[in-house]
Amino acid sequence: MAPTQPQQVKTPQNGLVQTCEIGSLTLESLEIIPQVTLAFETWGELNEHRDNAVLILHALTGDTHVSRANITEDSHTTSPAQAAGWWEGIVGPGCVIDTEKYFVLAPNILGGCYGSTGPSSPTPESIDSSRKPWGSRFPLVTIRDTVHAEAHLADALGIETFYAVVGGSLGGARAMEWALTYPHRVEHCVVIASGPSATADQIAWAQSQNLAISLDPNFAGGDYYDGLPPEGGLGLARRIAHTTYRSAPELHFRFGRVAQRGERPLQKCQAGERGRYAVESYLDYHAKKLADRFDANSYLAINNALISHDITRGRGSLTTALAASTCEWNIAYVDSDRLFYPSESIVMAASLPQPGEATAILSPSGHDGFLIETDQIERVLRRTF
Amino acid sequence: MAPTQPQQVKTPQNGLVQTCEIGSLTLESLEIIPQVTLAFETWGELNEHRDNAVLILHALTGDTHVSRANITEDSHTTSPAQAAGWWEGIVGPGCVIDTEKYFVLAPNILGGCYGSTGPSSPTPESIDSSRKPWGSRFPLVTIRDTVHAEAHLADALGIETFYAVVGGSLGGARAMEWALTYPHRVEHCVVIASGPSATADQIAWAQSQNLAISLDPNFAGGDYYDGLPPEGGLGLARRIAHTTYRSAPELHFRFGRVAQRGERPLQKCQAGERGRYAVESYLDYHAKKLADRFDANSYLAINNALISHDITRGRGSLTTALAASTCEWNIAYVDSDRLFYPSESIVMAASLPQPGEATAILSPSGHDGFLIETDQIERVLRRTF
Repeated sequence: MAPTQPQQVKTPQNGLVQTCEIGSLTLESLEIIPQVTLAFETWGELNEHRDNAVLILHALTGDTHVSRANITEDSHTTSPAQAAGWWEGIVGPGCVIDTEKYFVLAPNILGGCYGSTGPSSPTPESIDSSRKPWGSRFPLVTIRDTVHAEAHLADALGIETFYAVVGGSLGGARAMEWALTYPHRVEHCVVIASGPSATADQIAWAQSQNLAISLDPNFAGGDYYDGLPPEGGLGLARRIAHTTYRSAPELHFRFGRVAQRGERPLQKCQAGERGRYAVESYLDYHAKKLADRFDANSYLAINNALISHDITRGRGSLTTALAASTCEWNIAYVDSDRLFYPSESIVMAASLPQPGEATAILSPSGHDGFLIETDQIERVLRRTF
Repeated sequence: MAPTQPQQVKTPQNGLVQTCEIGSLTLESLEIIPQVTLAFETWGELNEHRDNAVLILHALTGDTHVSRANITEDSHTTSPAQAAGWWEGIVGPGCVIDTEKYFVLAPNILGGCYGSTGPSSPTPESIDSSRKPWGSRFPLVTIRDTVHAEAHLADALGIETFYAVVGGSLGGARAMEWALTYPHRVEHCVVIASGPSATADQIAWAQSQNLAISLDPNFAGGDYYDGLPPEGGLGLARRIAHTTYRSAPELHFRFGRVAQRGERPLQKCQAGERGRYAVESYLDYHAKKLADRFDANSYLAINNALISHDITRGRGSLTTALAASTCEWNIAYVDSDRLFYPSESIVMAASLPQPGEATAILSPSGHDGFLIETDQIERVLRRTF
């Protein structure tokens, strides 16, 4: 499973997307992806002892852009590097994950659509001389496969050991798997709003989302790159997912039963559609936003990776599996999370080699609290950084 | 809004579907359905004082068949009347709702597909001389509209006052609306696993389900009766709904992460699909079961009625709205319900003219507990019967 042509990346550039060819990858299914590229961003610099690297792993539809570029105010531009990242304020100069102290690495997950090899990538010539996108032919990747790929990236960057591996939600699943697959390479593992294995409930929600995409007539079995993308299906998948990401009380207090401005939910308009409630308009907005930026096949691939997640697979009980870890664990959950229930984190923390307690992040917002409650996340991270 | 041609129904037949023409109905939207039929079943007999009638109102995909026919063992046949009903053991001779004492009436909701006028019914000749099914032209009906229609049915059956109006989930919403629209006609109101108004969360889930149906290429904007029905979309709607009907712990303990027998979730088969987890197969089963028996347009119509539910609309605060009721209330919730959260019932009970407490039904099963926990439901009903 060693990369065929590891490629040393020399000059980390803060908050700009770089790529690394990590060679071929043999998957858990024993299928082989002949040429794998991982996209990533970095902030800060690897120090002489190479002991200041931090790996940040994004969630389901996340990307490499955790934080703005670490540049001075004078050089502000409108480049992508200047867009706010998904954990802005958590990672940066002077932040809790201080990029003046740590070398932060954030890869796009294998199967993704932000530069890493995924279903929308051209196939290698050895598989298809026309080099059409993988589409339906993209193999099933597991969380372990994604972690193996990231280990090759770390090799290429000259990182033997990470001071910390950090992730929330799917990123937390990736972080856990890192700590158990490569215990000697992980000193601290920070897991927020995740659990030791995908639950039956999470599998059920993922199934609905996957079926929403495949129901879209544009999906064409996954080979839609010559035509229109299945935006309706991807948007529906997002609506389902987004509802699981928020709490019922939050939706109640934000939207209640209010009609969307200018619309009448108890009347059909001439086209036969009724007016929308405000919460429907909110979900329409998030559906469109994702459909405009994400590839539906990547959504399927990463969703399937998410539900493959099980740190106990082939490793015995949860306690036995975790006994192989040597890192310091830092586990937190969002109290109102109804996708990754608090009990999952609590059981996980209690099953560690040194049993502990998971930290509660108090939030009305449900699962998305791991992105929203910056102050509390910072306090959680201060236990490690 | 009086029925144009009320039709007296003379001979109630236990557990067999009957129909009643209630004439035209003016809806909240001010649209008019010129000819409305309501299907219903009855058990027992209306007594001389006409004070023993009980109205039982079904949930989203329910029907009129609450219980088996009340006939002697000798006459067992294989007729539909002999199939188990959805509240078997609750309604029948000697049951808590004793059909030897009460005259039980269970109508199919307006917009449904079990005999009442709905989108799959032929249009009246005055609207379309070809009498094609309503399809996309079926108007938006609210919970209040359905209650108005049922009042006309009660008129036709010679029932002025119900001893009790009883319902769970959407049926509970219908029961509440009965108690507030016709306070003088309801002596007791039993509401199980429902709430005073559809919440933003319920609207969000309904939206996903509605979009699943309309995404199906067979849907044809709702006018699919000449072609294949949108079974894929309806099945997906059911999967989403069914997941909200069960609790995460129940799914965990029943299915965990187990693979469906003979399938491999971490492998793609030749057709490109991965094997299923057992929970996916379970949801597939429920999806197919519903798609085989239900009309997708009726699902949309009743779902839209469900989210129209708001006993406070035009009636002031919850307390003010409830102050108009004169019945004895009996409110219960399922403790693990994550679609109609317990707080909705608790707030409702606390807002009654005589504030009380809602009764907890303890169940691991989530919302569906209102169909499953027969012993506890019986105990709840004993407070009224």
